[in-house]
Amino acid sequence: MGLKFEIVARDTGTRARVGRLSTPHGVVETPTFMPVGTAGTVKGMTQEHLEQLGVQMLLANTYHLYLRPGHETIRELGGLHRFMSWPHPILTDSGGFQVMSLKGLVRVTEDGVYFRSHLDGSLHFFSPEKAVEVQLALGADIIMTLDECVEYPASHETLLRATKLTGRWARRAKDFYDEQVGRVPRESGRGVREEPAPGPQFPPPSPSLFGIVQGGTDQALRRQSVEEIVGIGLEGYALGGLSVGEPKTEMYETVAYTADQLPADRPRYLMGVGTPEDLVECVARGIDLFDCVLPTRNARNACVFTSAGKLIVKNARYARDQQPPDPQCECFVCRRYTRSYLRHLFLAGEMLAGILATYHNLYFYLDSMRRIRQAIVFGNFERNYFRVRAGL
Amino acid sequence: MGLKFEIVARDTGTRARVGRLSTPHGVVETPTFMPVGTAGTVKGMTQEHLEQLGVQMLLANTYHLYLRPGHETIRELGGLHRFMSWPHPILTDSGGFQVMSLKGLVRVTEDGVYFRSHLDGSLHFFSPEKAVEVQLALGADIIMTLDECVEYPASHETLLRATKLTGRWARRAKDFYDEQVGRVPRESGRGVREEPAPGPQFPPPSPSLFGIVQGGTDQALRRQSVEEIVGIGLEGYALGGLSVGEPKTEMYETVAYTADQLPADRPRYLMGVGTPEDLVECVARGIDLFDCVLPTRNARNACVFTSAGKLIVKNARYARDQQPPDPQCECFVCRRYTRSYLRHLFLAGEMLAGILATYHNLYFYLDSMRRIRQAIVFGNFERNYFRVRAGL
Repeated sequence: MGLKFEIVARDTGTRARVGRLSTPHGVVETPTFMPVGTAGTVKGMTQEHLEQLGVQMLLANTYHLYLRPGHETIRELGGLHRFMSWPHPILTDSGGFQVMSLKGLVRVTEDGVYFRSHLDGSLHFFSPEKAVEVQLALGADIIMTLDECVEYPASHETLLRATKLTGRWARRAKDFYDEQVGRVPRESGRGVREEPAPGPQFPPPSPSLFGIVQGGTDQALRRQSVEEIVGIGLEGYALGGLSVGEPKTEMYETVAYTADQLPADRPRYLMGVGTPEDLVECVARGIDLFDCVLPTRNARNACVFTSAGKLIVKNARYARDQQPPDPQCECFVCRRYTRSYLRHLFLAGEMLAGILATYHNLYFYLDSMRRIRQAIVFGNFERNYFRVRAGL
Repeated sequence: MGLKFEIVARDTGTRARVGRLSTPHGVVETPTFMPVGTAGTVKGMTQEHLEQLGVQMLLANTYHLYLRPGHETIRELGGLHRFMSWPHPILTDSGGFQVMSLKGLVRVTEDGVYFRSHLDGSLHFFSPEKAVEVQLALGADIIMTLDECVEYPASHETLLRATKLTGRWARRAKDFYDEQVGRVPRESGRGVREEPAPGPQFPPPSPSLFGIVQGGTDQALRRQSVEEIVGIGLEGYALGGLSVGEPKTEMYETVAYTADQLPADRPRYLMGVGTPEDLVECVARGIDLFDCVLPTRNARNACVFTSAGKLIVKNARYARDQQPPDPQCECFVCRRYTRSYLRHLFLAGEMLAGILATYHNLYFYLDSMRRIRQAIVFGNFERNYFRVRAGL
């Protein structure tokens, strides 16, 4: 495996673990939350802000960057890290989830997905191979196989079909990836991995390919999907198709069930999840990586996460409130600005509203993850987050 | 006079001068450029960004803050400095210019201006007294008398009427101001200024009131207006009614003519001007303070100021341009981001586009002013900015 992942601490009462994921652009301490930088920018944040926040790894959306400015343009400009001036780790999704969200503009075949651009209606096609090709052009540290993500609820037939297709696509993605990056694992018998030349590497080290497990909330399907995807031999495994409308308890059960079957020595990534509570619950079930638009999208809609719950800062009750968004928070927003000022900025439609709320929400998420990691390392995770909370 | 203003250097070949303006919230080195913070925020900038830029004084718009969140709300929250968390100098305009811009929604009478809110169509009235009252509630360091600003071209009759009205309004503003802040100058014979109590001052020191000279590009009218406004005895003087459509040469002539007649020991403020070239030309004619939306508004429209002129960063020619916006610039944007990335952000409608371009443009303006001040102090202003440029 090209991607080094060490487990440095395990919680005793839960499946939670702290790891160190060594990517070509630096080490990521897990569990971690990846802010979403859809079009090569986390909306409203400068890269300086992201560094100040301690963001370890960004997620960027392949679909959006493929359409604009185009993956070839980004490749010519030296890759996404250089294009957006983010010299730290980046993960790109496969484009599958965005494409599936384009209802009525999509046709899924065995070959791949035909879809129309949301920008100009032009017709495009993503095969498993194409999704890898585009992501290699972008040059992220971690790339994802193309999957078919199904909404909840779905018939068993639909789920089964999508899960099997996801498995076949993952195999094709891996074969294409191996051809492209010349990293055919020794054990496959199909070739010998080329050793990189000594000295500075150019082109830079290849991205690591992660597979995506599907199967909805159906345990048998999840087990089948794990077997198929893990059988391919990828560098990390993601749980897709969750947080798509299913009840929380089903999501948590599915996460627990699925994570337990994934290789313990490989990073586990829960895609598109979730709320602050979801992060705690899913860390406890063995998840290492998360991404979600919630903190950033909510921020732009005046919804601020605080230690006392969500706060809708546009609310009239905050018109003369001189408290910071979260009095318990130590971010620069909470040290300097008030709820009354934030409310004014939102009502006036000012850019600064989204900027300050986004920064605060990301701080809240990232700081939560820092505390979680620390609690795991100090052996306090279960006690701090579950027993105390449950009043035991 | 409550407002201390010292001239610390004068250029020998021009009217340019460097001064130190001591306001209740700190010293402002002049000549300086004030970014426009319309609704209590410079669009796209955090206050941390403004401090990093070295912004000395902000301009905020009385009209906008009066309508939303309301001057009474801001007063209750401790004033504008506290509301927006900007502990440095602020100047508020009188609201006159914004009101006059509401074409068809305005009626000017001897008493004042009736206008309809651009937000909800509600009817409002600003008298010279009301404009002072609102500004005192906001609590800026420098406040302006209400004036009537006339577009170019205008008939002599219109200009004459507006200029005379501006004079009468300034008198009323000053009388009201004196009543409110108990700062009746000794020399007026109408009372004795109260000495402030020793120790920490609460309420904070009163804002200084500046008058506005009108008269279009008509020298006789400007002279009359200067006599009337200066006769009232204010702490600084502004040139209004310029950059409203008149040719540049006429503007520069009017600035030179008017500035020469204003008291040399009081700050001179050219309202709403202008381009980088305008700043140089008008500093040379004796102006100390400037404000303009140009750097910030242009930034949001993808127009970036550089040492080689304006750059329309959306232009297709920059799609693969890896240079910074201005290779000569040392701001954080130019040290980190490329034209191709900025172009992408603008095309994708991303917030970061406006943020980065605004920061850079303000840096360009503020750095230009720093260089101008330095050149004046070192006796190089005329040589650097005029003789060399003219090829002498």
